[in-house]
Amino acid sequence: MTAQLHPFPSPAEGGELPLDEVVAQLRQARLDWRASQQRPREAGGRELPSAEALAAIVEGLRGALFPMRLGPPDLRQDGEDFFVGHSLHTQLQALQGQILLELRHAARQQQSLAAAELEAETATQAAALTRRFALSLADIRRLLDRDVQAAFEGDPAARSVDEVLLCYPGIAAMIHHRLAHQLYRLGVPLLARMVAELSHAQTGIDIHPGAQIGAGLFIDHGTGVVIGETAVIGERVRIYQAVTLGARSFPVDGEGHVQKGLPRHPIVEDEVVIYAGATILGRITLGRGATIGGNVWVTRSVAPGSHVSQASSQASPN
Amino acid sequence: MTAQLHPFPSPAEGGELPLDEVVAQLRQARLDWRASQQRPREAGGRELPSAEALAAIVEGLRGALFPMRLGPPDLRQDGEDFFVGHSLHTQLQALQGQILLELRHAARQQQSLAAAELEAETATQAAALTRRFALSLADIRRLLDRDVQAAFEGDPAARSVDEVLLCYPGIAAMIHHRLAHQLYRLGVPLLARMVAELSHAQTGIDIHPGAQIGAGLFIDHGTGVVIGETAVIGERVRIYQAVTLGARSFPVDGEGHVQKGLPRHPIVEDEVVIYAGATILGRITLGRGATIGGNVWVTRSVAPGSHVSQASSQASPN
Amino acid sequence: MTAQLHPFPSPAEGGELPLDEVVAQLRQARLDWRASQQRPREAGGRELPSAEALAAIVEGLRGALFPMRLGPPDLRQDGEDFFVGHSLHTQLQALQGQILLELRHAARQQQSLAAAELEAETATQAAALTRRFALSLADIRRLLDRDVQAAFEGDPAARSVDEVLLCYPGIAAMIHHRLAHQLYRLGVPLLARMVAELSHAQTGIDIHPGAQIGAGLFIDHGTGVVIGETAVIGERVRIYQAVTLGARSFPVDGEGHVQKGLPRHPIVEDEVVIYAGATILGRITLGRGATIGGNVWVTRSVAPGSHVSQASSQASPN
Amino acid sequence: MTAQLHPFPSPAEGGELPLDEVVAQLRQARLDWRASQQRPREAGGRELPSAEALAAIVEGLRGALFPMRLGPPDLRQDGEDFFVGHSLHTQLQALQGQILLELRHAARQQQSLAAAELEAETATQAAALTRRFALSLADIRRLLDRDVQAAFEGDPAARSVDEVLLCYPGIAAMIHHRLAHQLYRLGVPLLARMVAELSHAQTGIDIHPGAQIGAGLFIDHGTGVVIGETAVIGERVRIYQAVTLGARSFPVDGEGHVQKGLPRHPIVEDEVVIYAGATILGRITLGRGATIGGNVWVTRSVAPGSHVSQASSQASPN
Amino acid sequence: MTAQLHPFPSPAEGGELPLDEVVAQLRQARLDWRASQQRPREAGGRELPSAEALAAIVEGLRGALFPMRLGPPDLRQDGEDFFVGHSLHTQLQALQGQILLELRHAARQQQSLAAAELEAETATQAAALTRRFALSLADIRRLLDRDVQAAFEGDPAARSVDEVLLCYPGIAAMIHHRLAHQLYRLGVPLLARMVAELSHAQTGIDIHPGAQIGAGLFIDHGTGVVIGETAVIGERVRIYQAVTLGARSFPVDGEGHVQKGLPRHPIVEDEVVIYAGATILGRITLGRGATIGGNVWVTRSVAPGSHVSQASSQASPN
Amino acid sequence: MTAQLHPFPSPAEGGELPLDEVVAQLRQARLDWRASQQRPREAGGRELPSAEALAAIVEGLRGALFPMRLGPPDLRQDGEDFFVGHSLHTQLQALQGQILLELRHAARQQQSLAAAELEAETATQAAALTRRFALSLADIRRLLDRDVQAAFEGDPAARSVDEVLLCYPGIAAMIHHRLAHQLYRLGVPLLARMVAELSHAQTGIDIHPGAQIGAGLFIDHGTGVVIGETAVIGERVRIYQAVTLGARSFPVDGEGHVQKGLPRHPIVEDEVVIYAGATILGRITLGRGATIGGNVWVTRSVAPGSHVSQASSQASPN
Repeated sequence: MTAQLHPFPSPAEGGELPLDEVVAQLRQARLDWRASQQRPREAGGRELPSAEALAAIVEGLRGALFPMRLGPPDLRQDGEDFFVGHSLHTQLQALQGQILLELRHAARQQQSLAAAELEAETATQAAALTRRFALSLADIRRLLDRDVQAAFEGDPAARSVDEVLLCYPGIAAMIHHRLAHQLYRLGVPLLARMVAELSHAQTGIDIHPGAQIGAGLFIDHGTGVVIGETAVIGERVRIYQAVTLGARSFPVDGEGHVQKGLPRHPIVEDEVVIYAGATILGRITLGRGATIGGNVWVTRSVAPGSHVSQASSQASPN
Repeated sequence: MTAQLHPFPSPAEGGELPLDEVVAQLRQARLDWRASQQRPREAGGRELPSAEALAAIVEGLRGALFPMRLGPPDLRQDGEDFFVGHSLHTQLQALQGQILLELRHAARQQQSLAAAELEAETATQAAALTRRFALSLADIRRLLDRDVQAAFEGDPAARSVDEVLLCYPGIAAMIHHRLAHQLYRLGVPLLARMVAELSHAQTGIDIHPGAQIGAGLFIDHGTGVVIGETAVIGERVRIYQAVTLGARSFPVDGEGHVQKGLPRHPIVEDEVVIYAGATILGRITLGRGATIGGNVWVTRSVAPGSHVSQASSQASPN
Repeated sequence: MTAQLHPFPSPAEGGELPLDEVVAQLRQARLDWRASQQRPREAGGRELPSAEALAAIVEGLRGALFPMRLGPPDLRQDGEDFFVGHSLHTQLQALQGQILLELRHAARQQQSLAAAELEAETATQAAALTRRFALSLADIRRLLDRDVQAAFEGDPAARSVDEVLLCYPGIAAMIHHRLAHQLYRLGVPLLARMVAELSHAQTGIDIHPGAQIGAGLFIDHGTGVVIGETAVIGERVRIYQAVTLGARSFPVDGEGHVQKGLPRHPIVEDEVVIYAGATILGRITLGRGATIGGNVWVTRSVAPGSHVSQASSQASPN
Repeated sequence: MTAQLHPFPSPAEGGELPLDEVVAQLRQARLDWRASQQRPREAGGRELPSAEALAAIVEGLRGALFPMRLGPPDLRQDGEDFFVGHSLHTQLQALQGQILLELRHAARQQQSLAAAELEAETATQAAALTRRFALSLADIRRLLDRDVQAAFEGDPAARSVDEVLLCYPGIAAMIHHRLAHQLYRLGVPLLARMVAELSHAQTGIDIHPGAQIGAGLFIDHGTGVVIGETAVIGERVRIYQAVTLGARSFPVDGEGHVQKGLPRHPIVEDEVVIYAGATILGRITLGRGATIGGNVWVTRSVAPGSHVSQASSQASPN
Repeated sequence: MTAQLHPFPSPAEGGELPLDEVVAQLRQARLDWRASQQRPREAGGRELPSAEALAAIVEGLRGALFPMRLGPPDLRQDGEDFFVGHSLHTQLQALQGQILLELRHAARQQQSLAAAELEAETATQAAALTRRFALSLADIRRLLDRDVQAAFEGDPAARSVDEVLLCYPGIAAMIHHRLAHQLYRLGVPLLARMVAELSHAQTGIDIHPGAQIGAGLFIDHGTGVVIGETAVIGERVRIYQAVTLGARSFPVDGEGHVQKGLPRHPIVEDEVVIYAGATILGRITLGRGATIGGNVWVTRSVAPGSHVSQASSQASPN
Repeated sequence: MTAQLHPFPSPAEGGELPLDEVVAQLRQARLDWRASQQRPREAGGRELPSAEALAAIVEGLRGALFPMRLGPPDLRQDGEDFFVGHSLHTQLQALQGQILLELRHAARQQQSLAAAELEAETATQAAALTRRFALSLADIRRLLDRDVQAAFEGDPAARSVDEVLLCYPGIAAMIHHRLAHQLYRLGVPLLARMVAELSHAQTGIDIHPGAQIGAGLFIDHGTGVVIGETAVIGERVRIYQAVTLGARSFPVDGEGHVQKGLPRHPIVEDEVVIYAGATILGRITLGRGATIGGNVWVTRSVAPGSHVSQASSQASPN
């Protein structure tokens, strides 16, 4: 019995693996799917951005934004600018490649890829977008500095701004969001969404890249937070875990089609505090300095400075 | 002072590390545990499946299921079948090894490992299970295609099915679940659970591999979703973050022992929508097309087409 | 048109990347931040602990604590002690280096770094703390064994203690917590927090390293659980997903300054069960054996053995 | 003394590193070199083939040529074709990219790169060359099989053909050479040379990729063997370490310029044996079946079947 | 022209890659080879030792032999034994696996693999050989210490024994040889040869694992040295680059078959010195303390203490 | 028969591995060696430079010297200075750490390590040496440019200077040598030697780091070349494979001790050519423009412009 010689028993004992059969079945499943999507056979290779590539780019940009805290461990201040410049050189080129993939994918979706000039056009556009993205990085850093400062001031347990930058998931989420939001604004929403989902997977905080967020947002604990696409958040806002800033319903037009892009998420003014588990739905406004209690369900606007809490917060022993 | 010569101060300055002592203490702790578990000294090496191995297998199967989207970046369609075949060859062998480990571990748990024929028996069984798993892959792909389609149609923010496949945590969870559920059905529940926990760690969505889920499930945002072992979900269902499909209590038999495997989680019929934070407990039925509002707590069955929402959803400013 | 020769279009087509400009802007942003923080130019390299280093240390310690389950796959029992000893030798040295970084960072924060003796002092201290940490490992292992046992007994779906150790996120969280708590007690709270956040990112369970937790805690599902710094948990407690053990408010002193370190989180006595989504706030006591129902909001102490549940748990169809 | 706090003494103690100065000096050196080479500033990225890329390609092709011996350890015969197909798909694409780099580099060297059509032309050419290379692989495998057979028969110490394939540097050199020679014939001599130098570094055997070598060459020990560009070697030849098949002098034309490509290395007919250290120089012929003794210096043709050895091979004790 | 959208031109421009055709050709070449070797279709996976696996084992054993010099950089003496024990545990298991592969390969070569008991037999044998190998390691270390000492004393340029151990290719070659020779003696000549070729590739020194070498051999520079299978070398011998200790001819029996294993290489007695390029051929003896000059060709025995040099060592200017 | 359950047969079948015994034997061997070397027990960790670290440093410096040829593949000229600066920042710090290790090791060898000030002293010295090394890099680049140019001009087969830089082992050897020679001159001969041996292992060319070599040296093929410590080579010299520039004998002083550092290797003046296999021994001079034939043995000086060749270069057929 030859097969017993091998460390792992050969599948032959239970019959060989039906590889040819499974490969054929999977091929047919792909062909059916492509037919259902009216996709032509693609001449070339994979043409979509890559989550792994984006993760590496974001990791590299984090280091370039905070070189002495999130850059390489052997960095010294006399080498900071070289590191930052080299890192940007590498990551921005990689980003430009990913932007190009999204632009071309979008063009193909619109059946507008026939023209040869498309290639040159998207290349020029990708270069221009990358350039604009690069020029926004210092502003992003300054916003993040204010987020860090806010978290340090808002959490009595924080011992230093460094601890906040190194540990707090809310800060990790904001680094991702501020980069993703810039991509969203530049017109590459798929990349933006992929960056947002990297953050979601790591922190449990789900911020749509379209959300507009002022300086100094502090998200504490964070798991389960959801912030929708058209939400607008002012400065120095504090949000706890499991808070939702969601939509009540999707606006539909006269024919019942969902109308995309209409404002449908809350506006949260400066210095609002929203405690854990609160659910805020619809295009309402939480006025400046309002406080929303834990687990509260809010679907109407709240006046500045007011406090909203559950009517009967204490369940009684039975 | 010799020690100052070293980059890091030697522990000798504070006394050398008490390695021998700690090693002995840890050995005693292991012996005590093994004694408490009535475990014999194991003659050989580690005999449990490995989470790292399973993560690699799942990653490889994802690529084989969606070669042009989740496979290697340089893949072209003329090489798809070779890639799929080679990938399956590699991953299915690895899976067979892991299945073998679980089968033997289970046999040892039942004290039934004495017979030498056990070795051959489990090997044959592992090969047969792997073969059956392989032959189910095309069906899994077709189910996942319908999940992708459902997410695309259900989310007004989705721009293309590709975006859904690449980004949505709900889809990542379903890829894991449909593989895990097949393992569960084949009788390797430990592997199934390990795959489910890989998904839980990545997405925050916790689906027990035993749950039966029809085509076209769309889980939006997803963080905090929990779906229990005996839950049954129909087609085209939509579920938002923090929804629980749980058990009310564990059925016990006459002697107070928990009865395993009894149906204790909800049945969710086709086209039900469950909004964020809703808690559905017990073997109840949510009838076809029902809508369950956010944060609602449901422990009784709900008629088809009905809408359930909180009595007083708006807290008032105080 | 030379540029067309290159695989990726050159940025030159859209203008070269403004690297010098962006580098200068980022430098200015850093200088402004450092000025705002009154930081002197640092003479040397990065002086903060590293999350990557800690992740590797924790991974190594997990293997040393459970060598035949979480150690290398080729380990056999006759090599266990060598593996454990070598692993501790490596990881404890690395930990000592990280402890040193935190101690020196803390000293610098207090402007007390002028003295040359600081260097020797912190080195001695780091060695002593590492030694004490090492000597606590066997106790940690014994506590974790009881956690594993509790999860096995508490979950009817669990098939073996091995499955619990390999799969359950609640156990992963407790391994991290018991290590982090020991670091917290030794006076390196930044390292402790970093370890806690590693666990939070992986499991969605957020336990402050200061929390005191007795043997046999079982956290089921876990996503969204938050346990605060001064929480005290007894033995054999069970907690489900999305439970918060939080503070009601921060105690302030006469001048309105937040008073750090005061007890402000709940005390949970032995054998309490807290179902999913419950929120327990403030320095209250859940008496021995109490049961807290799902989604309940509790801000007053609960008598031993009592059951707390929502007044109106069932929403009605409308 | 702050600097003492750091694990490694800061360069500041000996003065900071003069990075700006060194960077400027190196920039000037590059500019001077480029000026001396009349090179324009390059608009884009690096445009030369990569030794690392080629090493990976050769490693991959080795596995595709001998899948069960040099392929992945878990390969079984039922998966061979999938592995071979996928491997070729990957490696040939990568090779095509490297060929494209060489073709464009060569075009630029000839100042002929102005035309935009060059890009398309070289792309088409690279694809065609890759195709021809692919179609030659089975012949290469058959030649290598004969080399392996020859080594097995020629070395009394060889125990199996498998040992020969796995261990013998002469076989490693021939695998590289037969691939490199095909690249040389296809008109990409830089790639060919790079592959040859990979072999030279690994085995100490230096075969110019232009050398024409019949089936069944056995190079024993091999270190120091040099075989020149226009050498022609018949079938079943045996060569020992430190043998040179070199040129006597470079043919020059009337104006004293070296004439490239003229035959200037030896012709070695079938079944010749050349012992260690022999030096054979110039376009001479070693007739069929001739034997050349160790350390002999040969610059004139040798008749078939004859034996050449040193006049006085034994030094006497003095 | 869609294809221009892709970073690399699609092969489609020059015709798609003929993958199916090439795969079929290569399959046929393999089948022809297997037929020519009378090989049955193999039921299982690759059954030969792996050079990569052996390289890792040798690297690991080097560290275990010289832990503070070639082991991990963070090793301290208080952790030496744990490191050595763990390293041996890992490497010896891996070695046992490789030994098993060779034993079974050898058994299959002899068509004797039919019996099921072969599996158990080779397993037992592999364990016994590994055990004997393990017990020889301390002797190997002591021999190597004498080689290091000899190199230190023999080279006026050596500054410390540490430099010798870290840098000298002659020492690297002896570490490999002494391990390979032990494998050779234990009856696994394929593994022995593979280890020897690892050394050959790295150092250019080609020592057959069968060669018997006394303590204190110093090989200086080393490139091109060849030492044959039946060579016997005494203690404190010195050898320079490009020296050959070879066979004159292969002894044949009455029927003209090469007789394997007969002594056919030189015996070199204690304290002999052989300068660069010397060729010593046949079963002759270089007597104790003899000196052989550079480039000399020796085929007869040399008396103890004598000096052999070239008759006319100086070429004259012409 | 439990053991048969495991993939690899347990060593227990042939008896467990005698790990404790082997560990004890190896410990004793180490203790004996340390006693024979009169070494005290080392309090700390490994204190010698690391070959792996040096290999990484040299690889990094190669890229910094030739950024567009040997740097990262995605580098463009607008990012060159950032890359060079960052690369130097990283590699020079690492080099400084290695220099420090050698300086301290040397100090300990001289029993002079007692004083605490040694630590500070060597740190300052390491920083100063690193600084001087950094300032020599541009000169090294200019010398290497001339070596490349010389190889391009000297080899009729070379097609471009880029090919020379990418492929030629002689250039690889010179890059290593010019860096190693600078380290030698700065007084860290162990590091210098380690760099030289990296080159030796890769190219088969063995140049002692002490050798003084003028601009434009071209070593063709190279395997087996040996150049001694006190050799002096002029400009535009050409050397072929297996050439030795060696010492005749070691100068001894009145008491028979080898006198280190005395000139004992040849002086080779400008534009000399030395063909393959020539052996040049002793402190003789090869005059400007001399040509040394292949395999010639030279121990007396050679006049400028003269040609030296073997008396009887052609062996006759017998």
